[in-house]
Amino acid sequence: MEPDGLAKAFVNHYYTTFDTNRAALVGLYQEGSMLTFEGDKYKGAAAITGKLTSLPFATCKHQVTTVDCQPSGPAGGMLVFVSGALQVGDGEHPLKFSQMFHLMPVGPGNFYVQNDMFRLNYG
Amino acid sequence: MEPDGLAKAFVNHYYTTFDTNRAALVGLYQEGSMLTFEGDKYKGAAAITGKLTSLPFATCKHQVTTVDCQPSGPAGGMLVFVSGALQVGDGEHPLKFSQMFHLMPVGPGNFYVQNDMFRLNYG
Repeated sequence: MEPDGLAKAFVNHYYTTFDTNRAALVGLYQEGSMLTFEGDKYKGAAAITGKLTSLPFATCKHQVTTVDCQPSGPAGGMLVFVSGALQVGDGEHPLKFSQMFHLMPVGPGNFYVQNDMFRLNYG
Repeated sequence: MEPDGLAKAFVNHYYTTFDTNRAALVGLYQEGSMLTFEGDKYKGAAAITGKLTSLPFATCKHQVTTVDCQPSGPAGGMLVFVSGALQVGDGEHPLKFSQMFHLMPVGPGNFYVQNDMFRLNYG
């Protein structure tokens, strides 16, 4: 698959997992993974998943607007840059967000998240 | 300087240069550098600077809202994730944007831009 296709497939998988079974995101991170969520920093799959599963909403739905990607260097990594909207709970106004992932390969077409930075775009 | 301080110093330098002497940005990119600007891809310092200097506004001013950063891996790179507002021309409404940079070291405290992805946050 082309890099753009891989990036879109990853993004689709990530947000589908986030919206349906947040705890399963643990499988996408490793011990050295880093998350910066609204400026707060977390390291390692357990801490990152702990943060994501304790966000103060029971249900959410990500709507992706744009996905850009670039190779990150000779190690086969991929940078993915996403914009979209996040609906939390029922009937709330969607919140715009931007997020970037640095994916590193663990096999052909298979990646884990080395770096993850998330920001709401307050308007 | 700490990574967060380096990231803020880079961001300040980058946007000050962008707003005062856009052509001088060429010094921050190298031949292998990549820019994705609103989904369009450019490679190499010349092509990237060509795009940035041909944007259809004579003057602009970046206002940075948030700067997040993480180390990108063993090569000493740094991922920088910015949100802010961009005022183009006089009296126009500022446009929200998000941008990510992957910086690679060229010396102590000195970086070039390996990856650059920019998106306006339409809203």
